[in-house]
Amino acid sequence: MTTQNTAPLDGALGRRMADTIRMLAVDAVQQANSGHPGAPMGMAEMGVALWARHLRHNPANPHWADRDRFVLSNGHASMLLYALLHLTGYDLPMDEIRRFRQLGSKTPGHPEVHLTPGVETTTGPLGQGLANAVGMALAEKLLAAEFNREGFPIVDHRTWVFLGDGCLMEGISQEAISLAGTLKLGKLVALYDDNGISIDGDVAGWFGDDTPARFRACGWNVIGPLDGHDLAALDAAITQATAVQDQPTLIVCRTTIGKGAIGQEGTADVHGAPLGAAAIAALRQHLGWTAPPFEVPDDLRAAWNGRSAGAARQAGWDALFARYAAAHPALAAEFQRRQRGALPAAWAAQADLAVMALAEASTKPVATRRASQLALDALAPLLPELLGGSADLTGSNLTNFAGCRTVTPGQAGNYLSYGVREFGMAAVMNGVALHGGLLPFGGTFLTFSDYSRNAIRMAALMQQRVVHVFTHDSIGLGEDGPTHQPIEQVASLRLIPGLDLWRPADALETAVAWVQALQRTDGPSALVLSRQALPIVSRPAQRADVARGGYVLADAPAGQPVQAVIIATGSEVGLAMEARRRLQAEEGIAVRVVSMPCTQRFDAQPADWCDAVLPPSLPTVAVEAGHPDGWRRYTGRSGAVVGIARFGESAPGPALMQHFGFTADAVMAAVRQRVAASH
Amino acid sequence: MTTQNTAPLDGALGRRMADTIRMLAVDAVQQANSGHPGAPMGMAEMGVALWARHLRHNPANPHWADRDRFVLSNGHASMLLYALLHLTGYDLPMDEIRRFRQLGSKTPGHPEVHLTPGVETTTGPLGQGLANAVGMALAEKLLAAEFNREGFPIVDHRTWVFLGDGCLMEGISQEAISLAGTLKLGKLVALYDDNGISIDGDVAGWFGDDTPARFRACGWNVIGPLDGHDLAALDAAITQATAVQDQPTLIVCRTTIGKGAIGQEGTADVHGAPLGAAAIAALRQHLGWTAPPFEVPDDLRAAWNGRSAGAARQAGWDALFARYAAAHPALAAEFQRRQRGALPAAWAAQADLAVMALAEASTKPVATRRASQLALDALAPLLPELLGGSADLTGSNLTNFAGCRTVTPGQAGNYLSYGVREFGMAAVMNGVALHGGLLPFGGTFLTFSDYSRNAIRMAALMQQRVVHVFTHDSIGLGEDGPTHQPIEQVASLRLIPGLDLWRPADALETAVAWVQALQRTDGPSALVLSRQALPIVSRPAQRADVARGGYVLADAPAGQPVQAVIIATGSEVGLAMEARRRLQAEEGIAVRVVSMPCTQRFDAQPADWCDAVLPPSLPTVAVEAGHPDGWRRYTGRSGAVVGIARFGESAPGPALMQHFGFTADAVMAAVRQRVAASH
Repeated sequence: MTTQNTAPLDGALGRRMADTIRMLAVDAVQQANSGHPGAPMGMAEMGVALWARHLRHNPANPHWADRDRFVLSNGHASMLLYALLHLTGYDLPMDEIRRFRQLGSKTPGHPEVHLTPGVETTTGPLGQGLANAVGMALAEKLLAAEFNREGFPIVDHRTWVFLGDGCLMEGISQEAISLAGTLKLGKLVALYDDNGISIDGDVAGWFGDDTPARFRACGWNVIGPLDGHDLAALDAAITQATAVQDQPTLIVCRTTIGKGAIGQEGTADVHGAPLGAAAIAALRQHLGWTAPPFEVPDDLRAAWNGRSAGAARQAGWDALFARYAAAHPALAAEFQRRQRGALPAAWAAQADLAVMALAEASTKPVATRRASQLALDALAPLLPELLGGSADLTGSNLTNFAGCRTVTPGQAGNYLSYGVREFGMAAVMNGVALHGGLLPFGGTFLTFSDYSRNAIRMAALMQQRVVHVFTHDSIGLGEDGPTHQPIEQVASLRLIPGLDLWRPADALETAVAWVQALQRTDGPSALVLSRQALPIVSRPAQRADVARGGYVLADAPAGQPVQAVIIATGSEVGLAMEARRRLQAEEGIAVRVVSMPCTQRFDAQPADWCDAVLPPSLPTVAVEAGHPDGWRRYTGRSGAVVGIARFGESAPGPALMQHFGFTADAVMAAVRQRVAASH
Repeated sequence: MTTQNTAPLDGALGRRMADTIRMLAVDAVQQANSGHPGAPMGMAEMGVALWARHLRHNPANPHWADRDRFVLSNGHASMLLYALLHLTGYDLPMDEIRRFRQLGSKTPGHPEVHLTPGVETTTGPLGQGLANAVGMALAEKLLAAEFNREGFPIVDHRTWVFLGDGCLMEGISQEAISLAGTLKLGKLVALYDDNGISIDGDVAGWFGDDTPARFRACGWNVIGPLDGHDLAALDAAITQATAVQDQPTLIVCRTTIGKGAIGQEGTADVHGAPLGAAAIAALRQHLGWTAPPFEVPDDLRAAWNGRSAGAARQAGWDALFARYAAAHPALAAEFQRRQRGALPAAWAAQADLAVMALAEASTKPVATRRASQLALDALAPLLPELLGGSADLTGSNLTNFAGCRTVTPGQAGNYLSYGVREFGMAAVMNGVALHGGLLPFGGTFLTFSDYSRNAIRMAALMQQRVVHVFTHDSIGLGEDGPTHQPIEQVASLRLIPGLDLWRPADALETAVAWVQALQRTDGPSALVLSRQALPIVSRPAQRADVARGGYVLADAPAGQPVQAVIIATGSEVGLAMEARRRLQAEEGIAVRVVSMPCTQRFDAQPADWCDAVLPPSLPTVAVEAGHPDGWRRYTGRSGAVVGIARFGESAPGPALMQHFGFTADAVMAAVRQRVAASH
């Protein structure tokens, strides 16, 4: 990969190109009366060096498959990115810069993918951008191994990430750099904005790391420290980084936060507030910048413009791809399908057959984690884009599948042992999904969704197709005790906007949940699975109802009016069915059981359908071995929830279920009491 | 600190002492048919070297103030700890070992503080134990600086931690080691069980770090790698570690997981399942171990027994403390109070006066984050045990207070800049609280409670007095956008059993929340505070009602029956009050406003009191700028919740409040509709 632009970087033009970023950032923050000027000012030369010389992109087409990926991990420096996108020719007009941080603008406070052309991931929560970048670089490496052929390097791009001290203090950075170093992601290059300042002041008081040594300890190539305002030094370092094939590279750029802001540069004061009119005037004078706010001199516009270079780059790749398609038509078609994120044409029919077959083959109690593995065994051959994995719990999560090939530092595959890194795994999966071409899923114990929670949220915010496999989903896991037993996790994950949470009851529901999660194109899903075996409760014919998220699993006997409804999920559906049977047999009470594996899907059904499943007039009891509060919206004040609102204990699972009142007797009592009260 | 025990370690006795641990672990796991034999077997010699020679403890008194702290960060190795506690003479009889992992035993699957004498913290969620240990070592250092006097080192103990590969893969380990290294916590010594195996197999595939280099990069003294089964080498390394004063030490112990299990040792197979009867028989033969399960030969019992040495140690300290008390009676009394965790005798009265004064001085709108700082200014002088801090957001969280002194590597104080390490901060605070003598609080943005979530949960599980200050508590924070705007966080934190969440509406409620959080002795609290200014709504006379968690803030005019109730919290209480005023004035609808700063406290009130505040028969509307689901339990199906169940946007706060329907008009419409429906 050669230098992409011949504009001189170290002369006056290069300096003024950096000042263009500075002034746009400062003026936009001032106009918004909100934002972070210090980081864009400090990283301006880093931006020039990378974007004007090395970044292989095409501003006219932010979706070009083989573009370099750029991640601004310190997302509060958003004005740096907006300035770069605007100046190099993305569809981000100056009017949007003027409307920085305003309602409906394309320039929100932190970069948001899908909102702004050229933004590759949503950043702001520190450290995650770096992990996203690791995911992108991983995806590139795996796709290159899968699709490239002799003479046809159709997947051959770098992932660049800018990051700051804050990213490196966050623990997730260690998870990301350790994994990247171990996997030898040689096309990942990080530029560290080493300005020595964070919000509380000089980082020496709380961040004494020898960062280069830390990265070297994790297998990275480290360049620098160098003067992060020296364009020639930056240019040389980037060139040097691109020569390394088998290690990710960190370039340590010593910078001054708020560089140019006389009297304020180098202090935390310039981090997160407008400089103020007087300081901006002084800055203009200091830089010799005569253009008014939001105006860019013509020579700088021309120097920055990357559209023709970008068009030429993509044209070269298009020609390569055309030759590739001629030589390898099936591979090329598959590559294009994968880039579109479309499932195979035969998927729907094949998946439905697989679900049917799984349901029919399921004749005895099975843990839903095992049912999940059986579903993967059946579905994975249909989806070569699957990239499975686990945070070091493969044998417990049962996330591996027949024929899966483990990714190693030297070998591509479709299954990754992420190590004990739940948060890193989730954020890396986000990066893989954002890159495109692969469909990531990963497992851990449900309780440790706490560790990865913000990355799950980010997947939802970014509407990424990522599947989380959370096993050991209640006190039913038994002896590992309260540190491992989820109580509030199911209810609390259901609160994340846009996350579909599935808690299936048996093999059929598990298979349907997988299919729904894999088909979903607008967000992540979580599959919440039992450690312990669960009875078969559903029938293959109900599979369309299962997909609706909540359905009548068993109703009152024909001709008898329903007197009460029991809603249940997962491991408690069998309990509900037993209570229903005994209430009918022993007391003549006619009960409907509604299985509700996914409340989000149920809530999205038409109201009349919801009311038909859960008639508002009927006494309703919900049963779930988790925190009860989420169910009140279905049971109302007059209903009841059999749940658990305290921490568990260490004991065999069946003993705990009994101990904490998850018994048919308790469910029956709740129903009986509600039926009596409703008369 | 000299060697504490003269038993030879490297002869046959030492080896058999280690085998005692092995056999207890293996037999207990086998009997439970559940558990983790591999780690206790691999760490047996580490246990012998530390516990039989260096640990300064008193088995008869697990609460001795100056005992060394021991943390088993890889908590799944619980049988190692139970064996050590049993053998050295803690109140943990063999019957409890036999009942490993059974309901009601003192030997749960993972160690739980308060349940088992001698267990210093609850571990299992990996990485957090190390961070707890950093908190303990920090507490020791700060208390030593505060209480020790020339010739009276009454606080002078070490913190020891055993940890495994899993702990080091977790990102929180980096947050902990970076902070410990920066703060030069020289009395912290970690022994790393470097066995090269995690659940997915050989860690080389996912954990390629040069761990010694990583720790050195973070300012640690590193010893080894050494043979972790060589007692003499371990003994020498520990001695060497205790000679270092200004750096924490890592001792890298190369071990074999499941050491002694012929044919299985050194593999992931021995990690998490019983060895099986045949393998145990082979192990017995291999070790030459003839005692039956759960029996310890007399000579080994004698060699292990640490009661007399422990009694002598504490007697020495007791004598020292008696002299100290004679020389410094006030300090000694203060030390004893702090050790008990009792607040000062004058606290209750002084705190109440402070609350009154704060409420009376509050005459104009104030952000509750600022009200929190004012409360701290008033309350901190009453509580020298306070240790404040922030995850690098001091100026935003306003967690610093008048006269607070920043902790630096070379200087003690009562305020800590934790760096951008939310999870690490929360787990370090847990360690500080567990150590005793200090009362930690720390701040970050509410959204980033996602990062620290499992440590908040652990504080609740361990019933520790820790206060989380979460500012920027809704879309009202404005321009930073959806990555920073909490939606589901308030509702989801309320689901953590045992956590009190306070979302106060004004200065009085904020002050009461602080007092309640500081007074609480059985668990953590979270204060959820606004970035933006909020109007004064409450009156000083209502402060006792505020403490009940929910109360009638404003009622229907005298003589007029209440037609509807609006429940609100925090920034929406002002909105509720405006809706109430206008409904009365414009439509003659009599509305009660209930302010509910803490649902947990409200739910703990007597039922008749709750019903008096929230009459079940009245139409009820809840208003909170967060996810609505949690409120359904109060509003029922017939009520309404004005909330937000989607992600926010980047724009000025007032524009967002309007955009997302947090307006008096919307609240009025909801009330009007419910009142009409109830007729």
